[in-house]
Amino acid sequence: MKLVLHNYWRSSASQRVRTALNLKQLAYEYVAVNIVTDENLGDGYRAKNPQAQVPTLEVVEDDGTSVLLTQSVPILEYLDERWPDPAILPASPLLRARARALAEIVNSGIQPHQNLPTLRTLKKHGLDEMAWPVPYIANGLAAYAKLAAATAGRFSVGDAPTVADLCLIPQLAAARRFGVDYSQHEVLVRIEKNCLAMAEFANATPEAQPDAPKGK
Amino acid sequence: MKLVLHNYWRSSASQRVRTALNLKQLAYEYVAVNIVTDENLGDGYRAKNPQAQVPTLEVVEDDGTSVLLTQSVPILEYLDERWPDPAILPASPLLRARARALAEIVNSGIQPHQNLPTLRTLKKHGLDEMAWPVPYIANGLAAYAKLAAATAGRFSVGDAPTVADLCLIPQLAAARRFGVDYSQHEVLVRIEKNCLAMAEFANATPEAQPDAPKGK
Repeated sequence: MKLVLHNYWRSSASQRVRTALNLKQLAYEYVAVNIVTDENLGDGYRAKNPQAQVPTLEVVEDDGTSVLLTQSVPILEYLDERWPDPAILPASPLLRARARALAEIVNSGIQPHQNLPTLRTLKKHGLDEMAWPVPYIANGLAAYAKLAAATAGRFSVGDAPTVADLCLIPQLAAARRFGVDYSQHEVLVRIEKNCLAMAEFANATPEAQPDAPKGK
Repeated sequence: MKLVLHNYWRSSASQRVRTALNLKQLAYEYVAVNIVTDENLGDGYRAKNPQAQVPTLEVVEDDGTSVLLTQSVPILEYLDERWPDPAILPASPLLRARARALAEIVNSGIQPHQNLPTLRTLKKHGLDEMAWPVPYIANGLAAYAKLAAATAGRFSVGDAPTVADLCLIPQLAAARRFGVDYSQHEVLVRIEKNCLAMAEFANATPEAQPDAPKGK
């Protein structure tokens, strides 16, 4: 079995999947898709991913058959079902619901308002694309912090990383990029520190990727 | 055990959960939260849901303890884990990934760009809030149709309703509201017809809810 991840260094959805692959010690081939130069909009990539989004995870089985998986959160769920150890979802239905809800605060509540196509559309309409995502990020992280306060140990839900943390870490980097201060949310600062102390998270950050600009 | 669904008749995320509850034959108490008059923004509702969004599912156990669940897709996953019959996810990891990816095309790919807070923000900035969501809906449904063509039977993935269909049906109603014609996507038209022929889907539509305007 071979895994090929079509992704982009600074894509937060890509980072979620890279982190999960690292946590599960699954080696993968890194294929860079430059979404800034619209490489994703070509027919070649669209054939892999009709939404023309990154990431796409290609799973090539030993018999040569392969499948293309899209949408980062469903990819995380797939990885956890097929390679359950270590788990990235808690054991109980309630805590699984908590972890997934935190992930969705980022995935559907914040990220769609700050991703590249949205920023381009805002700019086209003469709006300040650096200001638009700010309330979504600030309110989303405040809700995240409030809910996580009830479940967090060293990570967002308990003492092991879950899908929630996989979504949170790239979102906190985006918060910094858009100038949203989250230092008042002590629980987020603590979780970020604990995550980034792990090689599995650190090696998945944008700066550590082969297609990241050199020498920054 | 008692279920209380805090929701709004026209909320597409609420409709997903209502449909799941119907499919699983789980009775629930309907509590209307009027998001048009900002009832969700008050402290009372915010205490239940820090994001001030609908739906919130309250699960009251027989011993009197209760939990509040937020975010529609995680609620669907919770319902399927706790009350697995009938399943709203397929059995195999691959088909589960397919169903979840279709659901996410709607949940994170389209819906955030057409929900009430976004429409209000667009209006505040002098943008045409009826035009803004159109490309997201058109492109999202085209991608959905393309992926579903490979998995659909009577429903989006095979011959039983899944989380994909629960997200698709309210999204197709929203497409009509925003003037997006999807009749060229035969697979969507067929799935919609098969879903709405089921009482579980029909009884979850906005028009069938107790807080819907009368006499339309």
